[in-house]
Amino acid sequence: MSNLPFPKAEFADRIERVQKSMQSHELDGLVITAPPNYRYFTGYDTQFWESPARPWFLVIPASGETIAVVPEIGEPVVATYAVGSIRTWPAPRPQDEGVSLLSSTLSDLPRRFGRIGFELGRESVLRMPVNDFLQVQKNLVSIQLVDGSPCIWETRNIKSGAEIEMIRNSGQIVSRSFEEVPKFARKGMTEAEVCREMTIDILKRGAHAVPFLACASGEGGYAEIISRPKARELVDGDVLIIDIGATTHGYFCDFDRNYAVGKISDAAAKAHDAVWRATEAGIKAARPGVRVSDLWRVMMDVLEPAGMRRNNVGRLGHGLGLQLTEPPSNSADDAAVLEAGMVITIEPGMEYAPGKMIVHEENIAITPDGADLLTTRAPREMLTIR
Amino acid sequence: MSNLPFPKAEFADRIERVQKSMQSHELDGLVITAPPNYRYFTGYDTQFWESPARPWFLVIPASGETIAVVPEIGEPVVATYAVGSIRTWPAPRPQDEGVSLLSSTLSDLPRRFGRIGFELGRESVLRMPVNDFLQVQKNLVSIQLVDGSPCIWETRNIKSGAEIEMIRNSGQIVSRSFEEVPKFARKGMTEAEVCREMTIDILKRGAHAVPFLACASGEGGYAEIISRPKARELVDGDVLIIDIGATTHGYFCDFDRNYAVGKISDAAAKAHDAVWRATEAGIKAARPGVRVSDLWRVMMDVLEPAGMRRNNVGRLGHGLGLQLTEPPSNSADDAAVLEAGMVITIEPGMEYAPGKMIVHEENIAITPDGADLLTTRAPREMLTIR
Repeated sequence: MSNLPFPKAEFADRIERVQKSMQSHELDGLVITAPPNYRYFTGYDTQFWESPARPWFLVIPASGETIAVVPEIGEPVVATYAVGSIRTWPAPRPQDEGVSLLSSTLSDLPRRFGRIGFELGRESVLRMPVNDFLQVQKNLVSIQLVDGSPCIWETRNIKSGAEIEMIRNSGQIVSRSFEEVPKFARKGMTEAEVCREMTIDILKRGAHAVPFLACASGEGGYAEIISRPKARELVDGDVLIIDIGATTHGYFCDFDRNYAVGKISDAAAKAHDAVWRATEAGIKAARPGVRVSDLWRVMMDVLEPAGMRRNNVGRLGHGLGLQLTEPPSNSADDAAVLEAGMVITIEPGMEYAPGKMIVHEENIAITPDGADLLTTRAPREMLTIR
Repeated sequence: MSNLPFPKAEFADRIERVQKSMQSHELDGLVITAPPNYRYFTGYDTQFWESPARPWFLVIPASGETIAVVPEIGEPVVATYAVGSIRTWPAPRPQDEGVSLLSSTLSDLPRRFGRIGFELGRESVLRMPVNDFLQVQKNLVSIQLVDGSPCIWETRNIKSGAEIEMIRNSGQIVSRSFEEVPKFARKGMTEAEVCREMTIDILKRGAHAVPFLACASGEGGYAEIISRPKARELVDGDVLIIDIGATTHGYFCDFDRNYAVGKISDAAAKAHDAVWRATEAGIKAARPGVRVSDLWRVMMDVLEPAGMRRNNVGRLGHGLGLQLTEPPSNSADDAAVLEAGMVITIEPGMEYAPGKMIVHEENIAITPDGADLLTTRAPREMLTIR
């Protein structure tokens, strides 16, 4: 029985594309360890990633089928996903946690460039003990282990139509749920109470998980946007922000909504209007050939005249897909150029008074001639919590 | 405003204990990057860990206060947790993602041994690009970066009373929820439907999150225990296993329950009785001074005569706390000795016929004279789903 979320051809296409990229980066093989990459190339997913006792490897050779090098516990499971052959070791076995099996598998790969890629670079985390990685390098004396993350990001950055629909599904579920908030949230409720209700609502609407939910509130704005919801009670004049990354088969939406609690200050309303307009400008500017630094510029051109003091977020949006955030960054010095199939967030934010930020966010897919909105556009005026 | 889940003294004690361990391992400093370790030493938690764009560092010196080296977005947040001073860099900035700031911070530490620990060893994942780690090593010519994970595990392995109560709370919530299953689950429902209902129930009962939920079902048993719930419908004769890691302030329970769907085979019922008795034996044997390999032995002494063919899980339980699984492993060759304050799972399992496993699990804290059950003991006979 197959557990694949997409037709098998989708995974064959991903392998083919990354193998083309490996060729141009002169790699004889690419080793995958990180959950989102494992899922991307095989369809395999599990919450068992929460246990760090056993690493899992996928070896992508320069051509031909992949080799899953996995702990014994995983054999019956990976067999139901898009992998070629499977090799296992009895695990846990800390003194040799797959290291010798991975080394011999890599050593057997046809050698042309003498280079094998691992997830060593930008926005990458290697899901195995670093000392074990260094041991693999020692075992492979005539092979150089190098950064393979450019091949991974080049491939993952361009989403298929099926991937975009997964992100849209997550975005639409959360859009509906955001619309419900004023119906049940009330002054005096805590951030945590509102967000627990929302989480349950999102699950009931069919999202598979809510791996990211950040919430903050404060008079006229907030100082940060990355905390879990707190026990703070909502009071008149607050702006409440809820920022959600919910998933469908692992595909994230990542966007927020701001709510006015009772009557908010004119300054807060104005700041919200500025970030709403900046979002509008960002969405309108997005199309193939435009640099992400240009998107940053058109948003800054709205925010700066509106009184932006600073923005500790460090960018005005980012890539999105099997991770809450992926390259590129909508920032002044990111060289990325938009292409059809990329999915990004448009996320302008500004601190308009000390400790008072307003941040807004939507998700778009780049189409051949513009942008396709995957979330339901927020109303220009904040919804109100009574 | 403090967001700490424990009194500040609890965190001071943890730092003091790890600094004692660092002394014995001859470390001038210890660098923390992984979410559970960051949470353990500072109280800080966020689902923002889902974004890999920015690493976060905590530098623990040989003595004195910690130094949080964090991206700008994190400054107002970490300030509300148990950290000493805070240093920030403007992020994201892939060309120097905290590398130079971390290097100079480490370079300024008083030098006695010339060794600084990172999370490089057993069951550890370094949450920063490996290439950035290697660059830090290059920047620090006269300092050796070594494995600091033994210091971390030595400290984390012994839980405080407050930590044990968090784990108990998670265990009790899920125990109650498991008891509800026969009230709503019915033949013909899918694994996914039953588990979605349970997830919502667990959240309503006050758990903070359900980071791990695995589910499998099959006639008289199952071939694996690490998959997400599937679209498979429950039919007469199935054994359904649900294995849950829910959290309270990050502290996991990790245990399962088996349900008989209608009338199951005698062989399945016998196998369940064997793993139930093996659990009983494991719990009774657990006390300070006993080796985890002894626990493994007493459980095997029940399983083997009961017809155990194999067990692809590779161990019969493991440590538990801020992670779903922590060292040690209840296995033949793990040298760990139980001490008061350790929290472990007792998890015997066996394949009694090809492709038919039954696995059972409970959670215990080691007390000065035995074991304290943190979950509500499963009934000897499986509950039935009609």
